[in-house]
Amino acid sequence: MLQPELKLRRDKIRALMAQQGIDTALITCNVNLIYTYGCVVSGYLYLPLNAPARLFIKRPNDIEGEHIHPIRKPEQITGLLKECGLPLPVKLMLEGDELPFTEYNRLAACFPETEVVPCGTALIRQARSVKTPMEIEMFRRSGAAHTKAYEQIPSVYQPGMTDRQLSVEIERLMRLEGCLGIFRVFGQSMEIFMGSLLAGDNAAVPSPYDFALGGKGLDPSLPGGVSGTLLQAGQCFMVDMGGNFYGYMGDMSRVFSIGKLPEQAYAAHQTCLEIQEEIVAMAKPGAVCEDMYNKAIEIVTKAGFADYFMGVDQKAKFIGHGIGLEINEMPVLAPRMKQELEPGMVFALEPKIVLPGIGPVGIENSWAVTTDGLEKLTLCKEEIIEL
Amino acid sequence: MLQPELKLRRDKIRALMAQQGIDTALITCNVNLIYTYGCVVSGYLYLPLNAPARLFIKRPNDIEGEHIHPIRKPEQITGLLKECGLPLPVKLMLEGDELPFTEYNRLAACFPETEVVPCGTALIRQARSVKTPMEIEMFRRSGAAHTKAYEQIPSVYQPGMTDRQLSVEIERLMRLEGCLGIFRVFGQSMEIFMGSLLAGDNAAVPSPYDFALGGKGLDPSLPGGVSGTLLQAGQCFMVDMGGNFYGYMGDMSRVFSIGKLPEQAYAAHQTCLEIQEEIVAMAKPGAVCEDMYNKAIEIVTKAGFADYFMGVDQKAKFIGHGIGLEINEMPVLAPRMKQELEPGMVFALEPKIVLPGIGPVGIENSWAVTTDGLEKLTLCKEEIIEL
Repeated sequence: MLQPELKLRRDKIRALMAQQGIDTALITCNVNLIYTYGCVVSGYLYLPLNAPARLFIKRPNDIEGEHIHPIRKPEQITGLLKECGLPLPVKLMLEGDELPFTEYNRLAACFPETEVVPCGTALIRQARSVKTPMEIEMFRRSGAAHTKAYEQIPSVYQPGMTDRQLSVEIERLMRLEGCLGIFRVFGQSMEIFMGSLLAGDNAAVPSPYDFALGGKGLDPSLPGGVSGTLLQAGQCFMVDMGGNFYGYMGDMSRVFSIGKLPEQAYAAHQTCLEIQEEIVAMAKPGAVCEDMYNKAIEIVTKAGFADYFMGVDQKAKFIGHGIGLEINEMPVLAPRMKQELEPGMVFALEPKIVLPGIGPVGIENSWAVTTDGLEKLTLCKEEIIEL
Repeated sequence: MLQPELKLRRDKIRALMAQQGIDTALITCNVNLIYTYGCVVSGYLYLPLNAPARLFIKRPNDIEGEHIHPIRKPEQITGLLKECGLPLPVKLMLEGDELPFTEYNRLAACFPETEVVPCGTALIRQARSVKTPMEIEMFRRSGAAHTKAYEQIPSVYQPGMTDRQLSVEIERLMRLEGCLGIFRVFGQSMEIFMGSLLAGDNAAVPSPYDFALGGKGLDPSLPGGVSGTLLQAGQCFMVDMGGNFYGYMGDMSRVFSIGKLPEQAYAAHQTCLEIQEEIVAMAKPGAVCEDMYNKAIEIVTKAGFADYFMGVDQKAKFIGHGIGLEINEMPVLAPRMKQELEPGMVFALEPKIVLPGIGPVGIENSWAVTTDGLEKLTLCKEEIIEL
């Protein structure tokens, strides 16, 4: 990745560090290395406030250059800094919400004279929540490839398929268009394969994971998503695959029906499109996240679908979420979230209604906040597509 | 999952706890919950040495039963224990190598009167390293499905394909046979999509991840595996997909050639099969891991392929690894590993040689340690398959 882009990202982090009196960051978690170094390595990016970043690298063994030091273990870092005549950090931040407890303590012990603070994760996530122009361009390209894969979904559907069989064909379409497959999500207990296809009543099955909808899954070891249920006439399914084409997790959901649905389904779907339209009209820099959530609740309540909004027995408590290198970044469009939108933020907005006996309807698109509104990054048709 | 099976697993953990004077475990990481509770939940399994386990559960909201307590946050646990008239733990273990630093500290703070120790991960991994008969049966079924997918690989190959295109078709075969797709791996910075297909010289490209071989990958955000290279006549590729069919990560690699290969390739492949044969003959209960590693080095050195064994410029420092709910469990067949094999251990053995200009050859199978030897769990043909 180009140095000016990396410098821009590192300086966003440095500005937040300066506010908290932190003079150095030691960065080692994969997504944060992608953000600050441009690729995954096994090693540590040492980022001082007022000096160039240095990479202490274990693997791969073919990276060389200025300010790059091969190491076998992190205990070598302070010695190498001293050899370079560099001061040791006074207040160092580590990625406390991501590093395992023992790994954090091992790194902290490498700097016995230093005050070590765990706010690295929160601070870097804050920096990452406002994307650079290059990151938004990655999202545009990702959205285009994602759209191209979704447009082919009708061509791989065959009557008599199960949700699992169709999901496999859609996963293949995504991969053939270049999706990297891996689904990066923040939070130690969050996990999912490439995304979900939720059909009929499986969309209402509660899951342990904090995604918008659940699903029973195929095995107790991964209780979410497809359940092996037959795709049936008069029911619908929602495709919600992670669009990781260039490292950036674009998010898009679309609804397909097997034949015609009961009238109620189209009305519920239309309600979700209205929510999207109203929130897009509100979503300018300065808009408050909880206000957008409350607006959605207001619309869906007036339309009479509140009991089925964002799940049935177990409901998601958000209607949108920041996206980036991970699927769940800041901001979150949820109750009590006072955060305001800023230009450069990118988020998924996903009003969804699950109708018992029919299935999930609604919409999800990815949006970038501009200086005066939103840019849509996922450009598929939004009506229910009849198969 | 059946209660006797869960009790067996919990008692294995309890026996190790007792050795270290630990009277309670609090278990919350997904793989450890699968192991001790039978499925992923968002919550905590509270496991005392001398009393029944209790589940404190946040999500999903539809699990009920004896010894199950719905909670919103872990700070409620001690209060609920007191309500049940139960003593608080004296020495509590948490999953210190898996829980993020801040999450670990939050849980420890819930038990202010208790000595909290971080050895939960190491101790549960030790318990998990010796599988129960039911777990070995899961591996057998997984191996059969894995084999069925691999046997179809020649039918999806077409001349002119790139490594990426063929990998997508193999991923589809795996998924259609029931592979859950998700690839669980231990270690905060380890990640991979479903596995790898490494063709020609891409197999020698060093990667940041500590898998047996590397590969350039398609994007700097995931530098491992397929690179988009054309599958060329006179070269070979190795398929090494994770066989997660029932939660258990079976491991198997097979080699395919485009037409005939130079004679050297068949000799190198034969050397790997010899290594496998020799190590299988050694691998009885009591066999020492480093001895098996050293035997492999001895054979490959005598055969003249040592420079290309387990990579070229960057070499893996192991020839086998335990498998289970994660792809990298104990034991590890590596230098300085004094651990002895025990009945019930399951491991992958993967002697591999990467020949510049040709590609990777060798073999990988999954094996269960019996009372007097090994049972092979992955039963595909082992010669190089010519396409």
